[in-house]
Amino acid sequence: MQTQILERMESEVRTYSRSFPVVFTRARNARLTDENGREYIDFLAGAGTLNYGHNNPQIKQALLDYLAEDNIIHGLDFWTEAKRHYLETLEEVILKPRGLDYKVQFPGPTGTNAVEAAIRLARNAKGRHNIVTFTNGFHGVTMGALATTGNRKFREATGGVPTVGGTFLPYDGYLGDGTDTLDYFEKLLTDKSGGLDVPAGVIVETVQGEGGINACSPEWLKRLEQICRAHDILLIVDDIQAGCGRTGKFFSFEHAGVVPDIVTNSKSLSGLGLPFAQVLMRPELDAWKPGQYNGTFRGFALAFTTAAAALNHYWRDDAFERDVQRKGEVVAERFAKIAAWLGTQGIEASVRGRGLMRGIDVGTGEIADKITHQAFENGLVIETSGQDGEVVKCLCPLTITDEDLEQGLAILEESARQALS
Amino acid sequence: MQTQILERMESEVRTYSRSFPVVFTRARNARLTDENGREYIDFLAGAGTLNYGHNNPQIKQALLDYLAEDNIIHGLDFWTEAKRHYLETLEEVILKPRGLDYKVQFPGPTGTNAVEAAIRLARNAKGRHNIVTFTNGFHGVTMGALATTGNRKFREATGGVPTVGGTFLPYDGYLGDGTDTLDYFEKLLTDKSGGLDVPAGVIVETVQGEGGINACSPEWLKRLEQICRAHDILLIVDDIQAGCGRTGKFFSFEHAGVVPDIVTNSKSLSGLGLPFAQVLMRPELDAWKPGQYNGTFRGFALAFTTAAAALNHYWRDDAFERDVQRKGEVVAERFAKIAAWLGTQGIEASVRGRGLMRGIDVGTGEIADKITHQAFENGLVIETSGQDGEVVKCLCPLTITDEDLEQGLAILEESARQALS
Amino acid sequence: MQTQILERMESEVRTYSRSFPVVFTRARNARLTDENGREYIDFLAGAGTLNYGHNNPQIKQALLDYLAEDNIIHGLDFWTEAKRHYLETLEEVILKPRGLDYKVQFPGPTGTNAVEAAIRLARNAKGRHNIVTFTNGFHGVTMGALATTGNRKFREATGGVPTVGGTFLPYDGYLGDGTDTLDYFEKLLTDKSGGLDVPAGVIVETVQGEGGINACSPEWLKRLEQICRAHDILLIVDDIQAGCGRTGKFFSFEHAGVVPDIVTNSKSLSGLGLPFAQVLMRPELDAWKPGQYNGTFRGFALAFTTAAAALNHYWRDDAFERDVQRKGEVVAERFAKIAAWLGTQGIEASVRGRGLMRGIDVGTGEIADKITHQAFENGLVIETSGQDGEVVKCLCPLTITDEDLEQGLAILEESARQALS
Amino acid sequence: MQTQILERMESEVRTYSRSFPVVFTRARNARLTDENGREYIDFLAGAGTLNYGHNNPQIKQALLDYLAEDNIIHGLDFWTEAKRHYLETLEEVILKPRGLDYKVQFPGPTGTNAVEAAIRLARNAKGRHNIVTFTNGFHGVTMGALATTGNRKFREATGGVPTVGGTFLPYDGYLGDGTDTLDYFEKLLTDKSGGLDVPAGVIVETVQGEGGINACSPEWLKRLEQICRAHDILLIVDDIQAGCGRTGKFFSFEHAGVVPDIVTNSKSLSGLGLPFAQVLMRPELDAWKPGQYNGTFRGFALAFTTAAAALNHYWRDDAFERDVQRKGEVVAERFAKIAAWLGTQGIEASVRGRGLMRGIDVGTGEIADKITHQAFENGLVIETSGQDGEVVKCLCPLTITDEDLEQGLAILEESARQALS
Repeated sequence: MQTQILERMESEVRTYSRSFPVVFTRARNARLTDENGREYIDFLAGAGTLNYGHNNPQIKQALLDYLAEDNIIHGLDFWTEAKRHYLETLEEVILKPRGLDYKVQFPGPTGTNAVEAAIRLARNAKGRHNIVTFTNGFHGVTMGALATTGNRKFREATGGVPTVGGTFLPYDGYLGDGTDTLDYFEKLLTDKSGGLDVPAGVIVETVQGEGGINACSPEWLKRLEQICRAHDILLIVDDIQAGCGRTGKFFSFEHAGVVPDIVTNSKSLSGLGLPFAQVLMRPELDAWKPGQYNGTFRGFALAFTTAAAALNHYWRDDAFERDVQRKGEVVAERFAKIAAWLGTQGIEASVRGRGLMRGIDVGTGEIADKITHQAFENGLVIETSGQDGEVVKCLCPLTITDEDLEQGLAILEESARQALS
Repeated sequence: MQTQILERMESEVRTYSRSFPVVFTRARNARLTDENGREYIDFLAGAGTLNYGHNNPQIKQALLDYLAEDNIIHGLDFWTEAKRHYLETLEEVILKPRGLDYKVQFPGPTGTNAVEAAIRLARNAKGRHNIVTFTNGFHGVTMGALATTGNRKFREATGGVPTVGGTFLPYDGYLGDGTDTLDYFEKLLTDKSGGLDVPAGVIVETVQGEGGINACSPEWLKRLEQICRAHDILLIVDDIQAGCGRTGKFFSFEHAGVVPDIVTNSKSLSGLGLPFAQVLMRPELDAWKPGQYNGTFRGFALAFTTAAAALNHYWRDDAFERDVQRKGEVVAERFAKIAAWLGTQGIEASVRGRGLMRGIDVGTGEIADKITHQAFENGLVIETSGQDGEVVKCLCPLTITDEDLEQGLAILEESARQALS
Repeated sequence: MQTQILERMESEVRTYSRSFPVVFTRARNARLTDENGREYIDFLAGAGTLNYGHNNPQIKQALLDYLAEDNIIHGLDFWTEAKRHYLETLEEVILKPRGLDYKVQFPGPTGTNAVEAAIRLARNAKGRHNIVTFTNGFHGVTMGALATTGNRKFREATGGVPTVGGTFLPYDGYLGDGTDTLDYFEKLLTDKSGGLDVPAGVIVETVQGEGGINACSPEWLKRLEQICRAHDILLIVDDIQAGCGRTGKFFSFEHAGVVPDIVTNSKSLSGLGLPFAQVLMRPELDAWKPGQYNGTFRGFALAFTTAAAALNHYWRDDAFERDVQRKGEVVAERFAKIAAWLGTQGIEASVRGRGLMRGIDVGTGEIADKITHQAFENGLVIETSGQDGEVVKCLCPLTITDEDLEQGLAILEESARQALS
Repeated sequence: MQTQILERMESEVRTYSRSFPVVFTRARNARLTDENGREYIDFLAGAGTLNYGHNNPQIKQALLDYLAEDNIIHGLDFWTEAKRHYLETLEEVILKPRGLDYKVQFPGPTGTNAVEAAIRLARNAKGRHNIVTFTNGFHGVTMGALATTGNRKFREATGGVPTVGGTFLPYDGYLGDGTDTLDYFEKLLTDKSGGLDVPAGVIVETVQGEGGINACSPEWLKRLEQICRAHDILLIVDDIQAGCGRTGKFFSFEHAGVVPDIVTNSKSLSGLGLPFAQVLMRPELDAWKPGQYNGTFRGFALAFTTAAAALNHYWRDDAFERDVQRKGEVVAERFAKIAAWLGTQGIEASVRGRGLMRGIDVGTGEIADKITHQAFENGLVIETSGQDGEVVKCLCPLTITDEDLEQGLAILEESARQALS
């Protein structure tokens, strides 16, 4: 493989090409192929961007059909047929059946753009600057979003500019079993000298993707919603990684029965890996003035098209949801088995997650790296997450075949044994 | 046209659909078609994103060829064939012939992401937090980039969080003829109590797109480079709108013979309107640690593919550059004629710009709106810019046919007469 | 009493004159006299500024002696005899006997100035911007200090400028019995994505004066010191209110046997109520460059003089300390009795504090106000503190006579009965 | 002289004791005496704090009278007889005769405290965060005030926390003769994308003390007031150094006939060098809620007392003003003579200032240091100011005798000759 030019010209900031130092060329559903023709099972799926697999045929066909004529590709924030079709589909397939009433903002087509817009919207709506976020939360790295992202790797790379406007509180479980971390939040809210500036909003992932596949309990999320309502604070669910079916529901917050004031989506939203993002907001929050938040790629019509295709194909009934949940259980069981075996090797391991967003916490990044490096040797692309990279994370395509899922899990299990025996 | 769902579901933040309240469907080169089959000449070109026109056939063919097989579409920041091909092309077609030696970072695929990365890189490299930017500069709206963007519309919509880390200084010409605004910058740099925190970098557009098509003189830019060198400050040229040939050279700074330390590109970089952005940096500045700046859509292979196609097709010799310069003169002459006519109507007007980035300053946003609204009635999509929207701006595709260019200019001239007689 | 001009000319920001709306004229030790000749027992003592009583005769004599000749009164930061005498006394009487080795900075003569200097020193020493502070902490209201002050009254009055550089963590006891709040701090320090920017320093009051007379346990403070040492974080004890003998030791941290890296003193430091402040720092931390922190009143020689007199008169042996501790027990017992009686009235009350810094938490500010208003009617000046003003606070002069202490306590007890029966 | 303990125990931040490395003991009017009995003429006067001289007999007598009985010394912000007397005097002697109607806030007794209160008041009044300040302005070093202070020595010593909320614009004369710097301010105010956040207030010194004795012209200040009025911006005059008669009027802005919305005073306000500060505000701006800005030493009754004595003794008629103006002319003439002589030595020098706030700009700090070091050898205490310390500055007591003034000027002239011949 020719990698010299990549090593020479690409900035040192590159990261995945260090863990998986091959040149990938082809990909289909849950399979990646490198330049030498070697195949890999993909348990990473674009970090949750390819929920419907690589080169999903139905979605891709919609793209090709659209490209077959001279349809608008880039349309700023013009009204286009593609945008209208997407909005109609979103309303009909997703929002109405769930009883949700949201307006939609298309910010720049990345998650961090959506988060910047969401928190700015909350601040403007409430006239307060503070946004509460949680330990191990990840919401993007542009400076506004970074104020809500816990990872020091990014926070310490701002060249000495402290972030402004975010306050971290302990996520569900952070203070150990038996402590409801929301007690602390509630106490701070009512304490006039606790140091908490009353927040405009709370931003939360229901399952923390980068933070280590920590899933908050439905009860905790429900209580968080109640606290927000009681104190006139907006609840923002960042569903960029956990949304679009990843947890077994289209929106990850459906499990808890909460209705956020604001929702951010991106990653798998376009269905085919195209950059795309949206902010959903309760209509009464839409206090934007025309053009107050902008960006060049707000009207990327190819993504509208593929996103609509994904919704139409997978979300008109609950078959897909149920299938994801079923596969999620398969992963959960196998992960539990691997964790149990690790226990026999003196490695305290635990499993976590929801739907097809699952992790095994193996205690240290060093052990997790051993496993995932071995897995890559054995033909499985799988990543770690968590504050020390201590969680081996399964984010396979939701559309993965049972055979590939089984093969991937088998490789993982075998790799753990090889790496740690 | 059915616009109810668009009006109902899309956030009030929408802006272009207010100026051009039709539903666009098709587009080819410099022509847009709406749902009713009406055609428009496009002098907006995706706000500079469609330098090669809508549905550029060569670039689109490259996309279709790529999609014809199951090539990687989304690849995080994996090494992919598409990325390698793009880097090879960039080096061979653009960098080497210009004697430029840059490393490349792919941040999130939007301009504001590139700016956030660029200024953070500068801060980390120099260990200073301040970035000097200029009056009427626009560099994006995420919180880091916003610190360098002058427009109050955005700056006042942050929900009360002041931006941190940017200092505005007067752009070339801002203090009137006869005053070199860099005298002020140089004085502040040497003044230990002038209040200017020594900056890590200076970010500048050589022609300010959103700010009103203000073009700094080559001499001013050259002196700015010298001041930066003398004071160990990095020169960042934000070539997101003015780059990719818009001014008649691939990089807008080529006119002045300067070599920036850092360059940002986006908008027309992908050639077909796909979200894409890059940061170019002198190799010795590449102090990023792996993963210190990230984003999901850093490896959008479709954009690598179309971007490489654009470079290959248009930039292997200077024919395209010369053609843009020629058309630029056509626009400049016609704009001068229109400005002269406006003068006869008691409206003091002036022309400005470089290459195919041209504007007529008609004094007020009100007058400019009258002209552009009339133009839209007459079949021309054209935008205003400047602090009050007082500049009618031509950003037509660089590939526009001479006939369409002439027709567009004729519509504009006629519209001005209709609107203001 | 003539109060019209006071009401007309003084800003609405005035506060104590609302609780005690009389014009005071004379004062001696623990007794205040108003314009009508009415006497009050003073359990407020200048909010802890008059530990040695009003018009302390020994200290005042030193002032008069100094004024008897044309000695320097204001000396910028010149070397003066008065400063030298103070430093010699501080070293001999306070530092050496306690085995402390500190250098001394005289910032502006107010507590907030000392805190601004202390946290800046910590930031410069460690090259990190963050300062950890605690719920209900009060460290001043200038913008740097305010980042570490929890009270919303001040935090919400900044005109929309968020404070930068402080992170609040739960103080000892904040999460209820059985939870060591330092577990959370320690977890955040080792968690790379917990959102805690590694702090330069921790600033803490050993007894929170404005926050409600919350006294951290010696064990907690000791553990805090250990955590700081383990993570290369500076321990800053803000001893502005709790220092100068208030808790029964000269420095409040002596109870726990810790040695802070930086200490701030003000309030009672001058001994006579004159503005004065100092920052003590371990010598190796003194990385200030000449003049990097300044202020006009750094060399207020009258305060040097009275401060030295106070040290000489009260701190050459442990008699004064023991006397304060003894009186503290008297207050504690009486407060317990009052709290018990409140319990019989259905008001859950608890006592807290250390030395002569004692409080009764009566649950709500409303109840506390009833008691203190009645007390003022009955001839006792006493204040509330805490987030809702729910803590009735005794900060009487340490030099109060046993008779006045008994009388004050009797008034308080009687006032509670009158107000709440 | 014994200086070991001072050198050992005092922080390296000390500064004046480096320029004047003697131990001062006595002082009277414009004369300082060191421990060895050597006398110096004092052209520094506590950096403008001792306008009425050291140990001013009338003012000191008022202090001694007050101390003769057990009057309140420290009174938080209680109503006291001393405060009432001061307010009555301020109104009668200063405000009424000048037709000024201000309410008074007593912040902490330092200039930086007054500035923090003033800018916070402006922000709260206008609901905007930005404060415009000027090149070479000095307004204090606590973090809020520091946002308006230009000196890098302080700005770079914040441990990496950027200041928030201040924007520097060029002071009168900064862009050279023939450029009215307010044109730039006015242009920025009307430019919607110039990057200037519409300010709540403008803070300005009419003569910049630390910045180099730059005196703005009355016309410039008048225009600044008009711009503020036209744009609903508050005009804050920081009269901490230039006020209390220093320029030949009680308030320095009287020369220009402007009426600021907010005024800050400190330094010479107490008359005897005691820490004291006030904020004057138009009554309708007094939107403070009780206790929203606080501080321990707001009610330092000794300072109220001496301040009232100073007003009573010096400001009941215009004799003192005229005397200051007369002496100011004496200094101005002598300075011009010295500057002329410097010109003969090839040193381009110029004079500047107003009243008894005068400077000679000798071009570099190195030359200025030579002169002032020689002057100290010759018995004159005199300081430099300006961004490089290039301005030799006369801030002698306003009460200096003609003989001492002549002697001081003679020493200065002779010292310049000795140092530079």
